[in-house]
Amino acid sequence: MKLASGILHNQEELFLVTDQGAYQVARLRKGMGYGDERWTMDRVLRFGHEALTGLEQVGQWLFSHRAEPDPEPDKWLAPVPRPGKILCVGLNYRPHAIEARQAIPEYPVLFNKYQNAVVGQRALVHPPVGAEQIDYEAELVLVMGRRCRNVSVDDALHYVLGYMNGNDLSARDLQFRTGQWLLGKGLDGFGPMGPYLVTRDEIPDPDQLEISGRLNGRVVQHSNTREMIFSCAELVSYISRYMTLEAGDVIFTGTPEGVILGRPENEREWLKAGDEFTVEISGLGQLTTTIGPAL
Amino acid sequence: MKLASGILHNQEELFLVTDQGAYQVARLRKGMGYGDERWTMDRVLRFGHEALTGLEQVGQWLFSHRAEPDPEPDKWLAPVPRPGKILCVGLNYRPHAIEARQAIPEYPVLFNKYQNAVVGQRALVHPPVGAEQIDYEAELVLVMGRRCRNVSVDDALHYVLGYMNGNDLSARDLQFRTGQWLLGKGLDGFGPMGPYLVTRDEIPDPDQLEISGRLNGRVVQHSNTREMIFSCAELVSYISRYMTLEAGDVIFTGTPEGVILGRPENEREWLKAGDEFTVEISGLGQLTTTIGPAL
Repeated sequence: MKLASGILHNQEELFLVTDQGAYQVARLRKGMGYGDERWTMDRVLRFGHEALTGLEQVGQWLFSHRAEPDPEPDKWLAPVPRPGKILCVGLNYRPHAIEARQAIPEYPVLFNKYQNAVVGQRALVHPPVGAEQIDYEAELVLVMGRRCRNVSVDDALHYVLGYMNGNDLSARDLQFRTGQWLLGKGLDGFGPMGPYLVTRDEIPDPDQLEISGRLNGRVVQHSNTREMIFSCAELVSYISRYMTLEAGDVIFTGTPEGVILGRPENEREWLKAGDEFTVEISGLGQLTTTIGPAL
Repeated sequence: MKLASGILHNQEELFLVTDQGAYQVARLRKGMGYGDERWTMDRVLRFGHEALTGLEQVGQWLFSHRAEPDPEPDKWLAPVPRPGKILCVGLNYRPHAIEARQAIPEYPVLFNKYQNAVVGQRALVHPPVGAEQIDYEAELVLVMGRRCRNVSVDDALHYVLGYMNGNDLSARDLQFRTGQWLLGKGLDGFGPMGPYLVTRDEIPDPDQLEISGRLNGRVVQHSNTREMIFSCAELVSYISRYMTLEAGDVIFTGTPEGVILGRPENEREWLKAGDEFTVEISGLGQLTTTIGPAL
């Protein structure tokens, strides 16, 4: 299933996305005779399997009733609008570590964003005044579906709810102002995710997904998640040895080569207002973000 | 006012703390004739000034009625049990930067913890198996009371709800495993805060507070927040240029010299099960944390 979040009539709603379009879950459930229920991603995270079963019923009903999709919401949110932890993995593709002039990591390099960075499909992201070196990073993002601690590599993916595109937007000048990257990674709006979350059952192997990034239509990043130094399961297992992971935590798994930082210094044209970047991972749709003027 | 959070009869409650003891706010308000109201720190963060006014009425009522304090809650929580962002400032006291063999920062060095690190007064903190070099860090913690972005140094403290003790517990081996400190800072329970939050009106100058840390009763850290490289107001202003701050965000402002990491290598005795560390800042009470066996 593909699940999206959006604002409709000033209220957050959950949408089921099919090839036909996006369907407001609460409205369909009502049509199916379930009465008034509020459906948001929080419900899916809280009730897990039970909520997914309810959504599968919606999917089957849709399939047999050929309903018209809803109009687009007023605004798309990130599929998980309020992630708990936003964990990010740095330098997880060898050629990217090399282009960034950093050592190939022996252990996952972990850093973070906060909820102020979270935006969804077609967001307009305004860098702060003074940030000059804005860069993109196409990434596969994992969404945790259940609490876990100290989970083995073999079991790790059982705790994953699903997958989505992410863009680990970075202001390089701020990222490298001190030794800690947070400042350049945690800016308002610098963590676009979406357009939807694809549940785990539809992605048999998250370590075999084509991933690409297009800047104003031109492919600038192109790789496959099989090139990751640490696989999805290894990342979940490793992190869970140190931090309890919860439903709604998300993990940005790192970006392949092709970022602006990787170019020779005199060829770096940092992102500017009006630039559009699209992340596309096989099966996960396309996430497009536009850079706005500095604010 | 001093505000604390705790679990009583399996429910989170807000307490008003006086020299006589801790009073459950909801119970007192009921006694004052206000009917059933739920009082948690979330309410204070959501309603701000209005909630504080209600709490001041409780304080006045207490003063004139000499009520008996409530029994201690079953468990103390961090005063803000679910902070939004947990921002931490590294190397903010010159002698600590020197003892840690790091450069004196030109800009605030920012890193993070997540909510899994949050614990309150008298917590028993179990390091993860494999983390060997457990260290303490006594710190002043700011609690934001209102949303702000791009706030000036002059105005910054107006957005602060109050202050509390914090212990930026750190596993040095994990902290320095990669260039990013998150792993060694973000362990479960590694962010004790409390015992209570002291509202801003009671702390006229947060940059003139004596701060100390005692390990098993012996003073090992002793300084004054006036020694901070970046003042409280400067930190809030700086961060707000890059990230929107929200009510309930907290900022660990950095630790003075005296940590275990600062000793000669052959004299470092890392924290072990049974060790007790107490942070004390003038006016903010004492925050005690005990290290438990690795889990």
